[in-house]
Amino acid sequence: MAEIGVGLVGYKFMGRAHSNAYRQLPRFFDVDPAPRMAAICGRDEAGVREAADTLGWESYETDYRELIARDDVGLVDVVTPGNTHREIVLAALEAGKHVICEKPLANTLAEAKEMVTAARESGTVNTVCFNYRRAPAVQLAKKLVDEGRLGTIRHWRATYLQDFIMDSQFPLIWRLKKELAGSGALGDIGAHIIDLSQFLLGGISEVVGMMETFVKERPLEEGGAETGEVTVDDAAAFLARFESGAVGTFEATRFAAGRRNKNAFEINGSKGSVAFDLERMNELEVFFVDDAADVQGFRTVNVTGPEHPYAGAWWPPGHIIGYEHTFVHTMKDLMYGIKTGRSPAPDFEDAYRCQAVLDAVERSAGGGGWTRPEYGGI
Amino acid sequence: MAEIGVGLVGYKFMGRAHSNAYRQLPRFFDVDPAPRMAAICGRDEAGVREAADTLGWESYETDYRELIARDDVGLVDVVTPGNTHREIVLAALEAGKHVICEKPLANTLAEAKEMVTAARESGTVNTVCFNYRRAPAVQLAKKLVDEGRLGTIRHWRATYLQDFIMDSQFPLIWRLKKELAGSGALGDIGAHIIDLSQFLLGGISEVVGMMETFVKERPLEEGGAETGEVTVDDAAAFLARFESGAVGTFEATRFAAGRRNKNAFEINGSKGSVAFDLERMNELEVFFVDDAADVQGFRTVNVTGPEHPYAGAWWPPGHIIGYEHTFVHTMKDLMYGIKTGRSPAPDFEDAYRCQAVLDAVERSAGGGGWTRPEYGGI
Amino acid sequence: MAEIGVGLVGYKFMGRAHSNAYRQLPRFFDVDPAPRMAAICGRDEAGVREAADTLGWESYETDYRELIARDDVGLVDVVTPGNTHREIVLAALEAGKHVICEKPLANTLAEAKEMVTAARESGTVNTVCFNYRRAPAVQLAKKLVDEGRLGTIRHWRATYLQDFIMDSQFPLIWRLKKELAGSGALGDIGAHIIDLSQFLLGGISEVVGMMETFVKERPLEEGGAETGEVTVDDAAAFLARFESGAVGTFEATRFAAGRRNKNAFEINGSKGSVAFDLERMNELEVFFVDDAADVQGFRTVNVTGPEHPYAGAWWPPGHIIGYEHTFVHTMKDLMYGIKTGRSPAPDFEDAYRCQAVLDAVERSAGGGGWTRPEYGGI
Amino acid sequence: MAEIGVGLVGYKFMGRAHSNAYRQLPRFFDVDPAPRMAAICGRDEAGVREAADTLGWESYETDYRELIARDDVGLVDVVTPGNTHREIVLAALEAGKHVICEKPLANTLAEAKEMVTAARESGTVNTVCFNYRRAPAVQLAKKLVDEGRLGTIRHWRATYLQDFIMDSQFPLIWRLKKELAGSGALGDIGAHIIDLSQFLLGGISEVVGMMETFVKERPLEEGGAETGEVTVDDAAAFLARFESGAVGTFEATRFAAGRRNKNAFEINGSKGSVAFDLERMNELEVFFVDDAADVQGFRTVNVTGPEHPYAGAWWPPGHIIGYEHTFVHTMKDLMYGIKTGRSPAPDFEDAYRCQAVLDAVERSAGGGGWTRPEYGGI
Repeated sequence: MAEIGVGLVGYKFMGRAHSNAYRQLPRFFDVDPAPRMAAICGRDEAGVREAADTLGWESYETDYRELIARDDVGLVDVVTPGNTHREIVLAALEAGKHVICEKPLANTLAEAKEMVTAARESGTVNTVCFNYRRAPAVQLAKKLVDEGRLGTIRHWRATYLQDFIMDSQFPLIWRLKKELAGSGALGDIGAHIIDLSQFLLGGISEVVGMMETFVKERPLEEGGAETGEVTVDDAAAFLARFESGAVGTFEATRFAAGRRNKNAFEINGSKGSVAFDLERMNELEVFFVDDAADVQGFRTVNVTGPEHPYAGAWWPPGHIIGYEHTFVHTMKDLMYGIKTGRSPAPDFEDAYRCQAVLDAVERSAGGGGWTRPEYGGI
Repeated sequence: MAEIGVGLVGYKFMGRAHSNAYRQLPRFFDVDPAPRMAAICGRDEAGVREAADTLGWESYETDYRELIARDDVGLVDVVTPGNTHREIVLAALEAGKHVICEKPLANTLAEAKEMVTAARESGTVNTVCFNYRRAPAVQLAKKLVDEGRLGTIRHWRATYLQDFIMDSQFPLIWRLKKELAGSGALGDIGAHIIDLSQFLLGGISEVVGMMETFVKERPLEEGGAETGEVTVDDAAAFLARFESGAVGTFEATRFAAGRRNKNAFEINGSKGSVAFDLERMNELEVFFVDDAADVQGFRTVNVTGPEHPYAGAWWPPGHIIGYEHTFVHTMKDLMYGIKTGRSPAPDFEDAYRCQAVLDAVERSAGGGGWTRPEYGGI
Repeated sequence: MAEIGVGLVGYKFMGRAHSNAYRQLPRFFDVDPAPRMAAICGRDEAGVREAADTLGWESYETDYRELIARDDVGLVDVVTPGNTHREIVLAALEAGKHVICEKPLANTLAEAKEMVTAARESGTVNTVCFNYRRAPAVQLAKKLVDEGRLGTIRHWRATYLQDFIMDSQFPLIWRLKKELAGSGALGDIGAHIIDLSQFLLGGISEVVGMMETFVKERPLEEGGAETGEVTVDDAAAFLARFESGAVGTFEATRFAAGRRNKNAFEINGSKGSVAFDLERMNELEVFFVDDAADVQGFRTVNVTGPEHPYAGAWWPPGHIIGYEHTFVHTMKDLMYGIKTGRSPAPDFEDAYRCQAVLDAVERSAGGGGWTRPEYGGI
Repeated sequence: MAEIGVGLVGYKFMGRAHSNAYRQLPRFFDVDPAPRMAAICGRDEAGVREAADTLGWESYETDYRELIARDDVGLVDVVTPGNTHREIVLAALEAGKHVICEKPLANTLAEAKEMVTAARESGTVNTVCFNYRRAPAVQLAKKLVDEGRLGTIRHWRATYLQDFIMDSQFPLIWRLKKELAGSGALGDIGAHIIDLSQFLLGGISEVVGMMETFVKERPLEEGGAETGEVTVDDAAAFLARFESGAVGTFEATRFAAGRRNKNAFEINGSKGSVAFDLERMNELEVFFVDDAADVQGFRTVNVTGPEHPYAGAWWPPGHIIGYEHTFVHTMKDLMYGIKTGRSPAPDFEDAYRCQAVLDAVERSAGGGGWTRPEYGGI
C-alpha cells in the first residue's frame, strides 16, 4: 500500500485531534495512500519532543520551514493559531506539498484570498478542517437534502453555544485577542455553522449582524491582578439570505450557561425537516411531511448503522462514536483526494467563501446594515 | 337533546376530576344524552354543600341511599375509597341505575365478583374509570396495535412511578391502610398499568411478583408524634405472560425520587414499537421496522391533530391538553354507552380481570411463585 | 360574592378559549368578582345563537354596540380579527367598560396609540390577552429572573414555529391578508415571543429584521381554481438589543415542517439559564452555574407542583395541564385587576410597546437596517 | 517506562475493541506499565495475519498455547466465545500470566468456579471486561452512590434492549446456540446489567425470572433453506432482591424494535435518583430531593468535564466520547492493577457472582420460583 508522509505544524488541542486521526485512520478504513506520521513541528523543542512521543510521530522539527523541506513529507497539516496560517500554508504550497489547514483559513479575507490563489497555482490538493461536516448525522442530513427528500429548503437556523469563558476571571487567552484569533465566538465557532450552512444549503448572498463583548477586561493570567482588554466578540448573531431563496439565522456565543458545546442546526424544507445537535452527535432528528398523518413526528435516528455514512467502519448499530471520529473521516477523504488529485470539500475556495461571510458579518456589525459577502475576489 | 341525571358519590380529588368532566363534556363534544349534574353526595354536610357549589352540582345529599333513590338520577358515579365501592355500587345497580365506578373496582376479588354479577343482573350500563385508556396517545397506540401496524406483539414493559410519600414523616393517610385501600402502590397505580396492558395486549395468563414496604411506621397525623403501621406496599413489581404469547414487566412505586407521575409503557412488536409517558401525555413515540433503513428512529408524535382520537374536539395541532381531559373522554364514551345500552370498556368484567391480576400478584408476592389470575369466577 | 358581567365579541377559536376560561375560572380559583357570562356577540345570528348555547353564555347580541350598551356588561372581551379591534375597543372604553383585547392590540401603531390614549382617559381596567405569559413554567422563569437566580441576563433566543400553511394549496384565509391581519407570522405568532421577551427581559431598544413570503399565490377557497395574492409574511426573523444590554434573536414562521406549535425561548444569564417550549408547556429547563461541578446540567422541572405559580389550583404534581389553562390564569388576574382597579400586565401600554417592535421590524425589513421602536408616541 | 507484553486470543468484534484500547491507551493516559501489543492469536492463519496487521500487533500465533508460552507475553487477553474461556484462561493462569477475560466469565457456574480457584492459586492479576462500568457517566453514578448523595438506595430498574435478530430470516449464528454461547440475551447483554447492578448496589440475594424464545427455527446460513433450532433465549426478565434491601427489575431482549443498544438503568434512593442510557452514554440524568422545591427536576449532566471520571483525558467539555473509550478506561485500570498487584474490579470473583445470578435466573425460569444465587461455591 502506498504511503504519504505527513508533517504536522502545531501540537496542542488540534494537534492531538489530528494526530489521533492519522493513527486511527488505517485501523478502521482501507486507505490508499495511508498516512505515515513523519514529523511534528513546534518552536519549543522540549514540548514538541514530548508531543512527538505521546502522539506517535516518528520525528520532530522546531522550524516549520525545515518540516516543509523534508522529502518524506508530502502533506503539510497546519493547526497553529489563525494569524500564522498564511505564512506556513504559502510556504508549503510553494514547496509543492498537499495542505490541510485548520479553520478558519485565515484571520482576514485578504490573507484567505492570497492562500486560495497560491493553492490554485500549486496544483496540489488542499482542504480546510471543518470537521463537523463529517459527523455521520451531518452527512445523513446532506444526503437527505441532495436526494430531495426534504423538498425545497426554506429555513436554516443554527446556534453554536458554549459557556467556557463566562467567569469574568477567566484569563485573556490568545483566543480573546483580535491580533491572534481574528475574531472571537464568530470566527471560532460561528465559522463552523457558516460552513455547515454552505455545505447543506449553498451560498449566502447577504447578511446583517451584531457582535457583543460582555466582559471587556480580563486578567492577563489566571489569578493575576493585571488585566487587559478583550478585543474580540463574546457573542455574535446574524440573519442571512441564501442564494437559493432560503432564509437563515445564526448565533455563536461563549456565554450560554449550561451549553457546553451546542453546535445545533435545523433545516426546514417543503417536504421535511432535520435537526442536529453536536452534544448528541450520533443522532439526527428527521421529519417527513408525507408520513401517514396519524404518525407524523420527528424521528430520532441513531446514525450508527451500516447504512449510514462512515458509521459502518466502526461498531455495531447503537454503539456510538465521539468527537474525534469526525477528524478520522476528514483524513479518510483527504487521502482519497490525494490519490485522485481532487481537493475534498471544503477546499480553500470553500473556506474563502466562509471567510467572506465572517468578513461581511463583521462589516455589518460595524454599522453596515445588510451586507454582501465579497466572493468576487477569487 | 336528551339528558341523564348524574349523582356523584364523593367529592375530593376524583370528585373534582369527574365534576369537571361532566361540566366540560357538552362544551366540546356533541353528546346525547348530555349529563345533568343533579346531585353530589358526601357525609359531611358543610363539605358537600360547598363542593356542590364549587363544582357545579344542582343539589347535594348526605346519604348515598337518598341519592340513589332520586328519580332524577339515572347514572351513579362512585369515587369514594375502595372499601366502600361494593356497598354503594350494589345499591345503585339494585335500583336500576347506570354506574361508573372509580378504579380499582373493589378491594378484594370476592367483592369484585359480586359486583360483576350484580351488574349483569341489573342490565344497566356499567364502566370503571380507568381514565388513562382515553388519553389520545394511548388510543393511538391501540389503533396501531389493532390495525396490525406493530405486527405480532412480543413485549410489554410498564412502570408507574411516583415519589409523593418518600418522606418518612409523610402521615399515615387512608391510602396507606390496607383495610381502606386494599393495597398500596399496587392497587392504586399498578392497577392503571395492568388495565392499560389488558386494553392493549389482552389477557394476562400468569404472574410472579414481589411487594415491599420501605417505611413501615408513619405519624398518624402530619407533624404528630404518634405513629402507626403502614399496612400496604410502597412498591410492587411483577413479571407476566400474556395469553397472546407476549411477555411483560410491571412496576409500581411511590418511592422513585423525581418521578412525579411517570405512568409509562413500551410495546415492542415484530413490525414496530410504541412508547408512552403520562408526564408527556400528548406525545407517543412510534417506531416502524419498515421505514427506510437510513431514517429509522422513534418518532415523537404530537397527538393533538384532527386525525387523532378525541383531539380534534379541543384545539389546533400542537396546543396540548391535560390530565383532566382523559375524564371528559371517558364520560363521552359513557354517554354513548348509555344511549346504545352497551357498557363501554373497561366494564366491570374487564375491571374484574384487572382485579384478578392484582390478586394474583399479591398471592405470588406472599410466596406463591408463578400464579394464575382467577378469571374463572365470573 | 361579587360578579361582573362579561360581554364577548367574537366566537371562533379565541371565542371558545375565552369562554372556557370564564366557565372554568370559579371552579378552580377563588375569584372576586366572579365572571358572569352575560352575552356573546357576532354578526351572524344563527352562528352566535348556537355559540351562546354551546359555550355557555346567557344571551347573545348581533351588534357589538348593543352589547356594549348593556347595563349587565361590565367587561368587554374582544376576540375579533385585528382590523376591528380599534373600533370595538374605543366604543367599550367610551362606555366606561373594562376591556380585555386579543393580541395584537391593533394592526397599526397609530391605531394602538389611539387605544392607549382612550384607555388612559377611560380610567377602566384594560389588558391584552398574551396568554402564554401565564403558563406556570413561564411564570417560574419570570420568578427566577426577578429573584436574580439567573444573574445578569445576556441572551434571549426565541422561535415560534408552525407548519399549518406549508401546503401551497392551503387557501387564502383572512390571516394571509394584510388588510385584515396586519401582518402574517410576525404579528400572529412573532407578537407572542416579543411579548414574552418584554415580560422577561424588559424593553427592546433596536431591531434589524427580514420578512419572507414563500408561497405568493393561493386559492381563494379550499380546492378552488381562482387564486389571490398572499399579502403578509410567511416568515420573519430579527435581531434585537434590549435596553438592559442583553442581545436577542427572534424568528416566527409557518413553514417549519413538523413544528406544530413550537413557541420556544431560552434565556442565558451570568448565573444560569432557562429554556421553554410550548409543546411541552408543563416543563421548564433550568440550569445553575453554581451547582456542584460534577452534577451540573439542565434540570427538567415538571412545573405542576403546589410550589409553582397557578399549578396548585389544578391537580397533584405530575398531572399536567393544557393550552386553555393559560386563559383561565389570565382571567383570574384580570378579575383581581378589576377588584383593585389596576390593569394587569400586559396592559394596553405594554401591548403598544410590543406593537412598536412589530412596526420597527416591518420598517427594518423594508430596507431600514437597524431600527428603533417608536415608544415615544405614548 | 515499563512495558507489559499483551497476547490477545481472538480477533473479531471484541478483538477490534481491545486492540483499539491498547493502541489508544498510552496516547491519552500516563500508564505504567504501558501495554506492548506483542501478539494476536487465532486458528485461521490468513485471518489472524491480516488482523495483526490491521489492528497493530507485532506478531501472531495460531495456537493459544504458543501464545501463552511466549516470554514476551505477560498479560493474556481472552475474547473468544464463552465456551472456550475456561480452557484458555486456565492455561494462562497456569503459566503465571495476568489475565483479562471477556464477559461472561464462563458458560456455566462450574466452569466459572474452576477459573476463580485457578486465579487465586496463580496469584496473578485477573479481571473481566465488563466495560460499561467505565463509562464516565456510570462512574459518576457510582461516585454519587458511594458519597451518599442518593441516600439509601431503594430501587434498581434496568433494561438492555436490542433488535438485531428480530428478522426471522436472520441466521443461526453462534450466539444463538447454547453449546457455544451458554445463553442468549440473558448471558450476552443481561450479564452487563447484572454486573452494573452489583457494581452500583452490591449483591443480589434472590431472583425470579423468565426466558422466552420467539423465533424457534432459523436458517443455518443467511439466505439458506436449511434451518436449525435456536437453543437460547431471545429475551429474559427477572425480579431481584438485593442484600441491601433494595429491589430490582431486569430485562434483556434482542426483540425490542427500534432499540439499537439501549443499556439503560435507573436508581432511586431516599435522597435522589440517577438514570443512564448507553445510547446517550455521555449523559447522566441526576435528581436530588434536596434541591429547592421550585426547581427540582432531573438534570441532564453532560459527563465530559475535567471534574468527571476519565473524561478530562480526552477533549474539552461537551466534546463527546464513544463506545470504544470504555475499553481504554478498562485497560488503564488494568495496567494500574498489574503495577500494584491488585486485580481491578470486576475480578474473577465478581464475575463469578454475576455468573451465579445468571445461573439462578436460568434455574428460576426453568420452574424454580424465587431462587438464590449460589455464591457459596467460591
